[in-house]
Amino acid sequence: MLTRIDHIGIACFDLDTTVEFYRATYGFEVFHTEVNEEQGVREAMLKINETSDGGASYLQLLEPTREDSAVGKWLAKNGEGVHHIAFGTADVDGDSQDIRDKGVRVLYDEPRTGSMGSRITFLHPKDCHGVLTELVTAAPPTGTEH
Amino acid sequence: MLTRIDHIGIACFDLDTTVEFYRATYGFEVFHTEVNEEQGVREAMLKINETSDGGASYLQLLEPTREDSAVGKWLAKNGEGVHHIAFGTADVDGDSQDIRDKGVRVLYDEPRTGSMGSRITFLHPKDCHGVLTELVTAAPPTGTEH
Repeated sequence: MLTRIDHIGIACFDLDTTVEFYRATYGFEVFHTEVNEEQGVREAMLKINETSDGGASYLQLLEPTREDSAVGKWLAKNGEGVHHIAFGTADVDGDSQDIRDKGVRVLYDEPRTGSMGSRITFLHPKDCHGVLTELVTAAPPTGTEH
Repeated sequence: MLTRIDHIGIACFDLDTTVEFYRATYGFEVFHTEVNEEQGVREAMLKINETSDGGASYLQLLEPTREDSAVGKWLAKNGEGVHHIAFGTADVDGDSQDIRDKGVRVLYDEPRTGSMGSRITFLHPKDCHGVLTELVTAAPPTGTEH
């Protein structure tokens, strides 16, 4: 069951400039940064609020590390903007199977590693009214990050 | 101060079909519907989770009521997808003034009426790294909607 808006993924040309825009304009601070070589992105997670299911909602700012990554190709076509949205679930495996059984294309055979040790998959935007949609199961908590 | 992701605004060609997709695929139910003649949209709010500031996060599904509305023109150009994101604040007037003072274009001189009696304004996407960004102050609670 999907129980929260986990994050909004925003593609940008320059991560540092975009992080600074969100800090200076709204006061949003970086909670976590990482490079995901498999996805071909350098990213910053800005925590916006906590959620009633015990999780949190983030903005995920994404800069491609290579032009031929999915985000790199998307940026070249569309320019900066909202790249995807993500819903949080305790069971990405079960939910993605259920959704596949309903005829929505799930892009990975098995969930892969996402931000902060989460397990993620994506649904095909053409099956989701134009919205690239991610499902996320967060990693078990290990402490507070800064 | 912006304290939550208030909603993700998703433009669609047919509201009823899109509502049914979100219900059948994810189990998300309609919390509220309305027509906003000023914005030129018919909309459905799907409540996804409550937030740590006492508010909630929604998906806002938007069907234009006329082709020359902002959402109608956007859809004709882009097709279905994420149209805007919205942050919640207790003080849309103060925050939009602060943000204007930082050089970001605010689209309305004064906040206007948004979903469920909220007060809203928008920031120019070209000043926000390609993201049309809304600021929302929710109406005071008057009871539970269904």
